[in-house]
Parts: sequence; C-alpha cells; structure tokens
Amino acid sequence: MPELRKDPVANRWVIISSERAQRPHTFVTPKIEKKVGFCPFDYGNEHITPNEILAIRPPGSPKNAPNWTLRVVPNKFPALRIEGDLNREGDGVYDKMNGIGAHEVIIETPNHEETLSTIDIKRFRDVLWAYKERMVDLKRDIRFKYVLVFKNHGEQAGASLSHSHSQLIALPIVPKRVLEEIESCSRYYNFKERCLICDITRQEIQQGVRVVAENKDFLAFCPYAPRFPFEIWLLPKRHESSYEKMDDSLLDNLANIFKIILQRLDVVLEEPPYNFVLHTAPFTDIHSNYYHWHFEIIPKLTKVAGFEWGSGFYINPTPPEEAAKYLREI
Amino acid sequence: MPELRKDPVANRWVIISSERAQRPHTFVTPKIEKKVGFCPFDYGNEHITPNEILAIRPPGSPKNAPNWTLRVVPNKFPALRIEGDLNREGDGVYDKMNGIGAHEVIIETPNHEETLSTIDIKRFRDVLWAYKERMVDLKRDIRFKYVLVFKNHGEQAGASLSHSHSQLIALPIVPKRVLEEIESCSRYYNFKERCLICDITRQEIQQGVRVVAENKDFLAFCPYAPRFPFEIWLLPKRHESSYEKMDDSLLDNLANIFKIILQRLDVVLEEPPYNFVLHTAPFTDIHSNYYHWHFEIIPKLTKVAGFEWGSGFYINPTPPEEAAKYLREI
Repeated sequence: MPELRKDPVANRWVIISSERAQRPHTFVTPKIEKKVGFCPFDYGNEHITPNEILAIRPPGSPKNAPNWTLRVVPNKFPALRIEGDLNREGDGVYDKMNGIGAHEVIIETPNHEETLSTIDIKRFRDVLWAYKERMVDLKRDIRFKYVLVFKNHGEQAGASLSHSHSQLIALPIVPKRVLEEIESCSRYYNFKERCLICDITRQEIQQGVRVVAENKDFLAFCPYAPRFPFEIWLLPKRHESSYEKMDDSLLDNLANIFKIILQRLDVVLEEPPYNFVLHTAPFTDIHSNYYHWHFEIIPKLTKVAGFEWGSGFYINPTPPEEAAKYLREI
Repeated sequence: MPELRKDPVANRWVIISSERAQRPHTFVTPKIEKKVGFCPFDYGNEHITPNEILAIRPPGSPKNAPNWTLRVVPNKFPALRIEGDLNREGDGVYDKMNGIGAHEVIIETPNHEETLSTIDIKRFRDVLWAYKERMVDLKRDIRFKYVLVFKNHGEQAGASLSHSHSQLIALPIVPKRVLEEIESCSRYYNFKERCLICDITRQEIQQGVRVVAENKDFLAFCPYAPRFPFEIWLLPKRHESSYEKMDDSLLDNLANIFKIILQRLDVVLEEPPYNFVLHTAPFTDIHSNYYHWHFEIIPKLTKVAGFEWGSGFYINPTPPEEAAKYLREI
C-alpha cells in the first residue's frame, strides 16, 4: 500500500510508493531499451490497459476495443490506490495516511504519431472536455479534495510512453503549490476585494509585453516572475475558479489557443519536451471568489540545480518579455 | 542589471538575469564541447578568476597565485551584482528590485581530480569553515538578509565545471523554502515551546530506522517524507539556529560525518551527481529559539516530471527507511 506522508518542516505531503520500491541499482543501471513498435495505447492493444472509464467512440461500438478517438483508463502502475479508507494517523511528530487516490491516463488520440500540436482541433477539445468530465465524476468521492491534471510530453519531461497522453491524480489532500496560491489570492482578496489573477489578467492585456496569444475568452502570457524560460500561463479572461464548472461553450476557444501555444513552442524551441499542469480550486467551494483556474505550461529546457531545489529560489536566464516576443512574432 | 521579481500568486522571488539573456537557439543547439585539459580552478590559472576574497595559503605567499589549498573568488558570471542600491518598486500588481547580491565560488581543493568524498578531512573542515567565515563577513552588509550555500556536484546536478567547488549567494530576500520552514517551526514552537527540528532529531535517534550516520555532535538521517530517493538531512544534535555561529570546535565532527555520508552515497549509488544546500536562520536574529540549521543532501537520480513542478507534490519510489538501511549497512 502506498503511503502519504507529511514533512512537518516543509509542510508538504509526499507519496511514498513503497510497493514498487526502487533499489539502488535501478538508479545506476542503464535503462532497458524500449520495445520498439509495441504501444499499449495503439488500436488493438486495448486489453493491455485496465478497463476504460470513459471513451469517445461511435454509438454502439464495443468497449475496450478499437474505433475510439479518446480513451480514459486507470494507470496500470498507479501512484495511489482507489480502494480503502484514508486512516490518518500520527507517528510521533510526523503525520501519515493511506495512499488512497485515483490515477488515470487520458489517451488523447489513437494515432501514435500525433501530438497535441498536430491533433485535429475537435480532438483537442475532447481532451479538455474529458478533464472536466473526470473531475466532475471524481468530485463525488468524498475522500478526494483535489484532482491534479497534468501532462508530461517527451522523455526529458518525464513521459514514459511516447504515445500522446495526459494524466490525472485525485488526491485526499490539496497540493502544496495550490494551497499557497489560494493563500496569496485570499490575502489579496481580503485587502482589495478583487481577484488577484483577474487583476493580473487586466494588467497583462493592458501592458501587452508578456502576451503570447489571446482570443475572446482566453489569455496566454509569460508570467512576470517565471521560474523557467518560456513558461506560459493560460487562463480564462472572465473570473472562474473551478475548471470543471466551465461552460462547454468555452471549450472550442480554449482548444484553439492551447493548440496555438503548443505549436509556437514547437517552432521557437524546436519541439521541446514540456509539462503542463492545471491549477483549479479544490473541491470545497469556499474559494470561488478569489481563486482563478489556469494552466501552467513549462518547456523543459534547463537543468535545475541544487540551489533551486533547496531554496525554492530560481534563476531564469530569459526575461518573460523576450520569451513572449519570440512566441508572439513567430 | 539582473532583476529580482516577485510572483504575487506563488509568492516567490525569482532572479531574471536579463544581461546574459538566452535566446531560443541556445536551448536547442547541442552544447559546445568543453575545452579538455584547461581548468580555471587549477594552479597557475588564478588570473582567470576574479581576485580572491579569501584563501588558505602559507603565510606570506602571494595572493592570486598557486600554493593555496582553498580559495574563495567572486563568480565570474554572477547571477546578482554586488554594487548598487536595492530600489524596491512596484509595477502594477507586481514587485521588483535591483538584482543586488553576492555570488561567490568556494574552490575546495587545488587538485582537479579530488572530490569532497576523497579530500583530506582537514580540507573538508576548511570548506565548512570557509562557509562560516564568508557568512560572517557578508552579514555585515545590511542589504543582505540571507546567504545561501550550495553545491552542484556532477553535470547532471548542474555543475558547469568539474573541479570540486561549492557556491554561495548573498540575497536581499529570504528564499521561499527557508521562509516556509521558519513558519512551520515558529507555529510548532508557539504550540509546544520546543524546537520542531530538535523533536525530529530526538525521534530519529530513538527510532533509528532512518539514521544514516551519527557522532557526538551531529546526526544524518533520511527524512520521514523525502521528495527524492536517498535524500539526507545533516544537522547538529544540540539546538543551533545559525550555521555561522557554530563553534569552530564542532567543525571536525561535522567534516567527519559529512565525508562519511558522501562516501556512502558514492558506494551505494556509484558516485551519483548530487546537490546539497544549507538551510540556516536569516540574518535577523529573531528566529533563534525555533529554527535549526541543517544541510539537505539530494542525489540527482530521478527525472522530475511536470506533475511535481506544477503541484509541489512528489512521488518518491524509495521509502527513506530502505534508503537509510542501504546507506547504514554499507
């Protein structure tokens, strides 16, 4: 059983997945070559993955068989387990609980060669819709407080399979970074009675220097104090705290701008590995006035050194104004 | 002039080093081969580095010339500039200040082949002494609030030169992770009237399962909820908040246990790249009751995926009890 443990000094929960414990030699032995040609996410290999939770396929077509255009399946090697009780308990000064959670994979396309930058825009919309759909469903489970949606694209960004997919993890805790953002936003709201991220959005549109792309409903910009070169935020212009409550009518515009961003990153940085992660309000609906959902998109370009791990303090060699200019003018 | 900028949502300061701005192609072009055989930290190349700030050398031997056993020099490509005023100012919703700070390199040995695991123990002590000495000196500069001491060992851990060295950065702000730790420790102190890290130290010694090494004055253990496999904390058993106030009589025992840890990592993980960072109380002496200095040592073994960047939530495949067992029993 994986375990959730809390570091009392850093005030951070960590998953210790003791079942697939890695011995020292697994870190030093060179990696085994991947089986070339075989992919569990291709048509015909549906039996290799756990049974599908959600799929987009022609009406009447059998489950766990080809003909789908999008598939959501449980992760075969989940970081957390779906069955069981939380059982919070102490261990002296420490805290732990059972590693309860859901870990799902969103297979974005049946086409092994496609990526989110080349995929049909309708399919991209389906991916964004599937995130919503799964969040709404998982929200019904009272054990969970948050669903973390994320994507690792490219081996350097942590993807273990090259077939285009994203993931989600439903958690019995709210991740530290989201908690911190909520705290900042709440403090600002108490002071100004305005949403901090709405104010940022207004300032970014007005100044324009960090804007990457924009449409009626969404804005993409390089944040003012980014940790990494070419980091991008993508968010709704109007105040919205919870991604899963977004009206479906917005999905087309979201897919459009998201695809543009990824295409521009591909051109400017020559198809870089990247990660994105969705920050949205936790399931308790008390933060709706002052929190504002957004995607954070981070191309994986620089090695992060110990100084940055150890301090939470980053040195970024590329000003966001320059990054945005490259991405805007392509 | 580099700039310090604050992200108002994440509540985090970042250095934007716009002078050595990196254009997109620098991220995609393969790295230029290093000049083999030439090292600016070797004897005879002292004129290549900026003038030394501190050195251990025979009495009367000329500065910036061979015969030293340890040398501290300004970083030739500093992330921050030493001259100037802080000039805090706003930019709408954002905050910034001039990138004022010191960035120094501690050249740990004249021998190009040595590392901290093979260095003479007296030299290791000198390195730990030099950290203290530089911190005491930089503390006199009222612009600075914190000195961050860190080491990147190995290219994968971010070292740009292979010659054994560590670095320090004096900052006009306190890094986010240290602030967070201080907050947790302060909250615990208000509740229990005891230092949280002293309580952790007692529990680790009593339970023993996560202990890596121990002597009269210091304890090394794998923390209860580590982000990374084989992460280690090293700290004084008696309460001490500020590294630079440590009595010199403790340096021998600190060097001893530190070298043992690095040697054991070398054996168990076959000379891994690693980072370490020193967490100590900020220069304002108000945290001395409840903060406790420590080194965090992190072997660079796993790729960190977007999920972890974006959430501050980590999946660690190696329980600290197992890591400690390997390191203890070697």
